[in-house]
Amino acid sequence: MTLPTTDPVAIVGASGALGFGLAIRLARTGAPVVIGSRDSDRAIEAATRAGEIVPGGSFSGHDNASAVREAHIVILSVPFRNQSETLTNLKTALRPGQLLIDATVPLAAAVSGKATRMLGVWQGSAAQQAAEMVPDGVRVVSALHTVSAAKLTELDRALDEDVLVCGDARADKREAAVLIERIEGLRCVDCGRLEMSRTTESLTALLIGVNSRYKVHAGIRLTGLGDVLWE
Amino acid sequence: MTLPTTDPVAIVGASGALGFGLAIRLARTGAPVVIGSRDSDRAIEAATRAGEIVPGGSFSGHDNASAVREAHIVILSVPFRNQSETLTNLKTALRPGQLLIDATVPLAAAVSGKATRMLGVWQGSAAQQAAEMVPDGVRVVSALHTVSAAKLTELDRALDEDVLVCGDARADKREAAVLIERIEGLRCVDCGRLEMSRTTESLTALLIGVNSRYKVHAGIRLTGLGDVLWE
Repeated sequence: MTLPTTDPVAIVGASGALGFGLAIRLARTGAPVVIGSRDSDRAIEAATRAGEIVPGGSFSGHDNASAVREAHIVILSVPFRNQSETLTNLKTALRPGQLLIDATVPLAAAVSGKATRMLGVWQGSAAQQAAEMVPDGVRVVSALHTVSAAKLTELDRALDEDVLVCGDARADKREAAVLIERIEGLRCVDCGRLEMSRTTESLTALLIGVNSRYKVHAGIRLTGLGDVLWE
Repeated sequence: MTLPTTDPVAIVGASGALGFGLAIRLARTGAPVVIGSRDSDRAIEAATRAGEIVPGGSFSGHDNASAVREAHIVILSVPFRNQSETLTNLKTALRPGQLLIDATVPLAAAVSGKATRMLGVWQGSAAQQAAEMVPDGVRVVSALHTVSAAKLTELDRALDEDVLVCGDARADKREAAVLIERIEGLRCVDCGRLEMSRTTESLTALLIGVNSRYKVHAGIRLTGLGDVLWE
C-alpha cells in the first residue's frame, strides 16, 4: 500500500537497527528516506541495502549533517552514548522549524551497565537532553522507543502496537504521528509533555527484560482508548 | 464464574478506590476478602458495602493490622503519602512467609504536586521502600499499578489488560499472578526484578495523563507475548 507522497524524512543513525528498520518501513509507504550515518560511506551502503529490500523505495545516503539538511522531519535514532555528540555535530545543520523525533533511550548499557536498567539523565530524559541541545526553533518530540528493531526489519511481520509520543506542543506530536502512522500497525498515542519521556524511554529497558524472559519481541498497547486519537 | 476457593486475601487500604475495586472483583471469584482500613469502623462499613455489591462474596472488615493477621497474601493499596506509616504500623502484624503485593505509586500528588508526575523515592520505587520496611521473611512483589480503580469498581465492565508484576523471586510473582488472574480479563506479565517497579509505577502517572487527555480509563497491554506466561 502506498500512501500519498510526503516530504523526505531524514533518519540520523539509520545504519543502526532501529533506524534502518524505520527507514525501510517508511520507504515502503512512499516516503522518501534520507539515511544519515556518522560516516557517509556507511550511509550510502545502508541506502543501497535498503533499496534492495524495498525496490520501489526512495533512499539516499549522507553523513548525518547532510542528511538533516535534506528533510523537514528528522528522526534521531542513535545509541544514548552518541546522542550528545551527534546533536553537537548537528548544531549547524538543524534549522528552525524542523521537527526532531527523538528515539534515544538512556539504557545503562551505554556505560557498560545492563540493558534492562536506565541511566539517570540530568535533564530528566534523553528527549529533554535533545530539546536542550537543538538550536532554537527546532521542535522536539519523543517516540518510537518501544518498537522492536527486529520486528521493523522483518517486513513480512505484521506490527500491532502503540507508539507513545511525548512533546510540549500538540501540533508537533500530531505531525510526528501522521508520519509514524504511515507504517501499518503502528498507532500513536499522545502521552503528554516531553518530560513524560522519562517513563516512555524507560519502557524500553522493561521490554528488553520481557523479551529476554519470554523470548519474544514485545510491544506496548494502551487499552481502552477510542478510535480517534489525533482529531 | 466462581473459581476454586482460595485462602483469604487481606487488602490494606481497601476502603480506598483501588483496594475496594480489587476487593469486590476478587470476592466475585470466590476468594474470601479481608478488608483492612486504618479505622476498623471504616473497614466494616466497606465490607458491608462490598457485600451488597457482591451478595455471594465473603467479606470481613478489620483495622489494617488485624486484617493482615487473617491472610497469607496481603495487597497493599494505600496512597504513597501513607505507605511508610502503614508499613511501620504493620511491622508487628506482618509475619515471615507472607506475600505482600505492593500497589503503591509515588505520584507527586502525594506532596501536592501533579498526579501526572512522579516523586523520586530514595530506594528507587515505592515497592523497594516496602521491601526495605517489611519484617525479614516477608516476600514483596509489586503489581496492579495500572489497573483503573473506576473500571474495577464497575463490575459490568469487562477488563482486558495486563498487570505488570515485578519481584525478585519468580515463585513469588507466580503466586501473585495466580491470585490476580482469578479476575477475568487481567493477565499478569513478569516484568523482572522488584527494581523494575520504578518503571511500572511510573506508568500510572502516564496513564493518568492519557486518561485526562482522552477521557478514558486506559490500561496497559504488552503485545507479542505467547500464551503461557507462568509455566
